[in-house]
Amino acid sequence: MTEPLVVIGGDAAGMSAASKTKRDDPDREVIVFEKGEWVSYGACGLPYYVKGDIESLEDLVSVPAESFVEERGIDLRTNHEVTSIDTEARTVTVAGPDGEFEQSYGDLLVATGARAVEPPFEGMGLDGVFTLHDMEMAASVRRALGLDAPGSRQEGDGPRGDASADGAPESVAIVGGGYIGIEMAEAFREHDLDVHVFEMLPHTLQPFGAEAAATVEEHLVEQGVDLHLDTAVDGFVGDERVEAVAVGDEEVPVDLVLVGVGVRPNVELAEAAGIETGPTGAIATDQYGRTNVDHVYAAGDVAEATNAVTGEPDHVPLALTANRAGRAIGATLGGEPTPVGEIVGTAVVKAFDLEVARAGLVDEAEAREAGFDPVSITIEAESRAHYYPGGSSIQVTMLGDRGTGRLLGASMVGREGVAKRIDTVATALHTELSVERVSMLDLSYAPPFSPVWDPVLTAAKVLAGKLE
Amino acid sequence: MTEPLVVIGGDAAGMSAASKTKRDDPDREVIVFEKGEWVSYGACGLPYYVKGDIESLEDLVSVPAESFVEERGIDLRTNHEVTSIDTEARTVTVAGPDGEFEQSYGDLLVATGARAVEPPFEGMGLDGVFTLHDMEMAASVRRALGLDAPGSRQEGDGPRGDASADGAPESVAIVGGGYIGIEMAEAFREHDLDVHVFEMLPHTLQPFGAEAAATVEEHLVEQGVDLHLDTAVDGFVGDERVEAVAVGDEEVPVDLVLVGVGVRPNVELAEAAGIETGPTGAIATDQYGRTNVDHVYAAGDVAEATNAVTGEPDHVPLALTANRAGRAIGATLGGEPTPVGEIVGTAVVKAFDLEVARAGLVDEAEAREAGFDPVSITIEAESRAHYYPGGSSIQVTMLGDRGTGRLLGASMVGREGVAKRIDTVATALHTELSVERVSMLDLSYAPPFSPVWDPVLTAAKVLAGKLE
Repeated sequence: MTEPLVVIGGDAAGMSAASKTKRDDPDREVIVFEKGEWVSYGACGLPYYVKGDIESLEDLVSVPAESFVEERGIDLRTNHEVTSIDTEARTVTVAGPDGEFEQSYGDLLVATGARAVEPPFEGMGLDGVFTLHDMEMAASVRRALGLDAPGSRQEGDGPRGDASADGAPESVAIVGGGYIGIEMAEAFREHDLDVHVFEMLPHTLQPFGAEAAATVEEHLVEQGVDLHLDTAVDGFVGDERVEAVAVGDEEVPVDLVLVGVGVRPNVELAEAAGIETGPTGAIATDQYGRTNVDHVYAAGDVAEATNAVTGEPDHVPLALTANRAGRAIGATLGGEPTPVGEIVGTAVVKAFDLEVARAGLVDEAEAREAGFDPVSITIEAESRAHYYPGGSSIQVTMLGDRGTGRLLGASMVGREGVAKRIDTVATALHTELSVERVSMLDLSYAPPFSPVWDPVLTAAKVLAGKLE
Repeated sequence: MTEPLVVIGGDAAGMSAASKTKRDDPDREVIVFEKGEWVSYGACGLPYYVKGDIESLEDLVSVPAESFVEERGIDLRTNHEVTSIDTEARTVTVAGPDGEFEQSYGDLLVATGARAVEPPFEGMGLDGVFTLHDMEMAASVRRALGLDAPGSRQEGDGPRGDASADGAPESVAIVGGGYIGIEMAEAFREHDLDVHVFEMLPHTLQPFGAEAAATVEEHLVEQGVDLHLDTAVDGFVGDERVEAVAVGDEEVPVDLVLVGVGVRPNVELAEAAGIETGPTGAIATDQYGRTNVDHVYAAGDVAEATNAVTGEPDHVPLALTANRAGRAIGATLGGEPTPVGEIVGTAVVKAFDLEVARAGLVDEAEAREAGFDPVSITIEAESRAHYYPGGSSIQVTMLGDRGTGRLLGASMVGREGVAKRIDTVATALHTELSVERVSMLDLSYAPPFSPVWDPVLTAAKVLAGKLE
């Protein structure tokens, strides 16, 4: 009999692979080891849980753990941590509630995800300093705000949780102006906190490019956010609880700190077993999600994916990539070799009243590094017909390659119609369309939804003119 | 010296071509003859003018007539009707306010547009019976509703205008359940009229397919529209004013009638001059917008375009196609041969609170006629992450070709996020992507804007499974 598929990590990639394998090959034994309590949850919803838009942590769960077990026949074991992999013997060592044991595998999927980077700041261990890397940490942040934390499976607070002996906090420092930082700024403003955002680079939202970021930053200030760009944080000051952020000679007094300076793939377990990482530091995989070791796959936030624009390995830890790769690996294991698919770095974030989106290469320097000769333009266009009420402006930055005329990428920012407009760009990038061809796409028009020339078409038209 | 470019028709295609020609070749003389009063206006906005969302007809004008003359150097002559074309002598005969004259041309663009079909119903000539084919007719409809008609350049009413001697009308029959019919239903409901929609086919919105239409129809009924499907109108009853719609043995009493049963290209002038029409009845053109006659181009609602899905000539009279073709012909005349571009039949319409969109082939019978072996699916997906508040359902119908696996088209309907989601499908159609590849596109995801698997991806995934 075939040895089981063993999956390490019970979130998007892991549970997608487990489910698809069981669906396509119901006789295959599938065991998932998840070191935490929660499986298959939407971590992207955590800022909205803190904000109060989402009632309970339970709402973020896509598929309840029982369903995986009872309906899909998956042997799902939460609170089980895989501590080592022996790729020769094809076994993993597992630490569970009842002690340590070995489990053999026929195939192994490493889906250990990523974790929030914890920079070596002084004072990272103070009470009131948080990252936002999992469900219970989001619950702790709510408790720290003096709010209830519905759905939390832990009593009381996390290690740094307790905040409110001195009453509800009035101010918060967010360290890092990325997605999480911006989304959490919105959440904290909702609870009327004074919000400071510290970003060491000249702009927030680095992957979205300077043009989109500048527009977002104006909006953040309008929303009452105290923005500290080009500002490196040195550490946090306080006795037991955080009291201030140290920045050079200055101290900015705050009641809470949220550190969101990026994520790092959890590769240590795999690396210790001889599974290779790629240039990005995440696990290197081929088009079927296979690692360098026979019968070992990797998917999700721990793994690289191929960027269709550059043709190079890339690490963009996002939910769709994880789900897609997990499902493809499941199909492959079920008997039908299925590529995990390429990415083009598509992303969108809500920044208060703005939608900010990107795909491909949006920064000239980055495009040059990837071997292109980039030309870029930034335009403003309307979201609706000029005469139709309620429209607003959409800013589009678009890059093309001078040599080939190829579309390289775009960013967009506006109050409406941005999130899904970027998908036109993403689709064009997957098929390596020229900017000229993009400018001639037959895109939808009706007065309530678009000008006759969609902003994407207008941007492509202007860029094509510059590429001639 | 080169003879002038003469353009017949001063709307989207004509003015785009005139403007682009002058921009790229400022020394070229460009003369535009427009038989009406208005040039370069957004006819798509007329239903919203009647509804009251748009204040004045003037707001619908994209570029004021003076700007074409003064800033762009175009010799624009309104109230000038071209009555014949002599393609041998390269002249047109023009009837203007000061009499008839001949004008020679070096190149000629036929951009005579389309007109509302006036079916041979008894009673079409009664007062209170309207089509909605131009600016002044929209003004007449407003007057017929007892409303002011800001921006109208005609005194009083059109030939069938006067309605309100007996007070404001209380009911209206819309004959034809196409775009205009649905948009006008919304406009009339806004003014609290009882609205009857008569459609002779089993469904409204024929180009959007039965699945989308059925969902729209439920919504129309919720909005208080009295829907008469599969119901052929026989004519209109009344003495001078319309009093009822005759349907078989029945008469449905109404105060007003709006006939919107489609448009027909204004090809008569061209045909009389030996300019050939194609299989759709519109003027046949090549990829540069050239007709069968040397130095004669056609563009806009009067001309065919090539459908990228079928590879065949098609007639989808929409604003973007007209603008694009006009601009391309201008560029070609300016010295740079530029294709007018292909269409994929992308369209979107607002139906009260719904967005309804389509691209490609959305009907199995139509796809079979075009030589494909269609397989279709219809799914429901969410517009946002399942846990994010405010989301709603999006229904996607998608067609693929069994033989090649190629995507053939899709329709979508929902309360949000539909209008621009169809552009992903449109872009994929332009590049002849397989359904499988569509299912692997890297589309944007964030909880407020989409589920992890965008509805387009989910539809493609399900359809790909059925195509295997």
